[in-house]
Amino acid sequence: MTDMQGFRYLSSMQNPLFKQIKSLQSRKGRRENGLFMAEGLRLVREICPPWELKTLILTEAFMALHEDWRICCQRYPEAEVVVVEEEWMRHASDTQHPQGVMALVRLREAVLEDLLQKESPFLVILEDLQDPGNAGTILRTADAAGADGILCSEGTADFFSPKVVRASMGSIFHLPVVRTERFRESLLTLKQRGIMLAAAHLQASLSYDQADYRGGCGILIGNEGNGLREETTSLAQVKISIPQPGRAESLNASVAAGILMYEVVRQRRA
Amino acid sequence: MTDMQGFRYLSSMQNPLFKQIKSLQSRKGRRENGLFMAEGLRLVREICPPWELKTLILTEAFMALHEDWRICCQRYPEAEVVVVEEEWMRHASDTQHPQGVMALVRLREAVLEDLLQKESPFLVILEDLQDPGNAGTILRTADAAGADGILCSEGTADFFSPKVVRASMGSIFHLPVVRTERFRESLLTLKQRGIMLAAAHLQASLSYDQADYRGGCGILIGNEGNGLREETTSLAQVKISIPQPGRAESLNASVAAGILMYEVVRQRRA
Repeated sequence: MTDMQGFRYLSSMQNPLFKQIKSLQSRKGRRENGLFMAEGLRLVREICPPWELKTLILTEAFMALHEDWRICCQRYPEAEVVVVEEEWMRHASDTQHPQGVMALVRLREAVLEDLLQKESPFLVILEDLQDPGNAGTILRTADAAGADGILCSEGTADFFSPKVVRASMGSIFHLPVVRTERFRESLLTLKQRGIMLAAAHLQASLSYDQADYRGGCGILIGNEGNGLREETTSLAQVKISIPQPGRAESLNASVAAGILMYEVVRQRRA
Repeated sequence: MTDMQGFRYLSSMQNPLFKQIKSLQSRKGRRENGLFMAEGLRLVREICPPWELKTLILTEAFMALHEDWRICCQRYPEAEVVVVEEEWMRHASDTQHPQGVMALVRLREAVLEDLLQKESPFLVILEDLQDPGNAGTILRTADAAGADGILCSEGTADFFSPKVVRASMGSIFHLPVVRTERFRESLLTLKQRGIMLAAAHLQASLSYDQADYRGGCGILIGNEGNGLREETTSLAQVKISIPQPGRAESLNASVAAGILMYEVVRQRRA
């Protein structure tokens, strides 16, 4: 910790900070405050510019056990550091067994142009994906696979919700997620920019490994129960399916997304 | 419903059936009763021989809305059918919004020989995989991929727990899951029977798509936090890794398992 930083000790839950954290559970609250929450050492350690750490909240027990939080303080000398009691943390936390560290980070919304920085971008596109665990896991897989970003429809789970942030294991800080009310227009823009859209569809006759993903591409994944909308599927140049030689009716959305993303990785590596 | 079946109407939660259902939440209770629970229409519809449906529990609202439960009654004329009130179901259910249908099914434990029925079996092997959601999702993916069964160590999540059964989306009824206290001996037996064991390992230098899975093979997946034990990895003939060109440190266990299983499918299809 630098000299610039002073600690603030807090015990009262009547404090505005406590109320603010609680409000960050909802999307409305996150938008009003322009902040979201990242909890646990693994996540907090991943915060780096251009993300801005506003407040770091720690328990004394956590500070005594771990040294890593100091890295955050060095990286963000302007951040406020607040030391709270175990019970305060327990009530503020979104998890059942809080580790004792939590960060408030400024919201940053990426725009479509952020996804188009490379010559042949590899994008993941989500339409109305509902489950926060799936959204976070897909973000984590996209990050591992070296994808250039995620585009999602307004009906998709909010990527800044505590559950998605947690399931992303820190990948929320690694690649741009663009959320748009103008989903159809965005897809048309991507097509105009030479991106091949590949729609995952249970009934498609082309196996996912028969398409060519070496150029710019976007893998389209739909809602867990209903898949992609007809009008979205019809926009895609390629309709692909994952063969299911066994008896299960379908795959989990984040597993399907992982299989498709790694076919892109395999082709681009070869 | 056949003539052989009478309905029993239940409203009291003091009833032994209610207590029995509650006891099926724990592994001990499931073993003592020799039963496990499958909840929701999608799961109940998948119950078929050799699985034995002992009791079907329904609400009147569910019976009025759906016809599919009659298929179960026809398939299992000896099964007891119990009609309960909404509140009874709400308290008995493991979910927040119960659909109104639940089945008690006899436990059946598969043995190693069940995994070796085909000439070149395709097996998934789990060592101490902890998360029930991951266990169920892996079972579902194995079922879609046409795998011949799952072998798991004693420390793996119990596949008959309500969460695993639910995440499996009915696949628990489709393929054999063998749980063993003699994990190491079982792996040695598989090797003696000509199965190639491929251990997923973050540090392995061989990419997963460079191994040959067209003969009998077993994909080894370890614990979410710690991976496979050293002694288990050393038993495997092949150590494989999934390339991660991006920034994430690792993949979710069920996503990694899905990517590996679908490489087996791809090679066997080609």
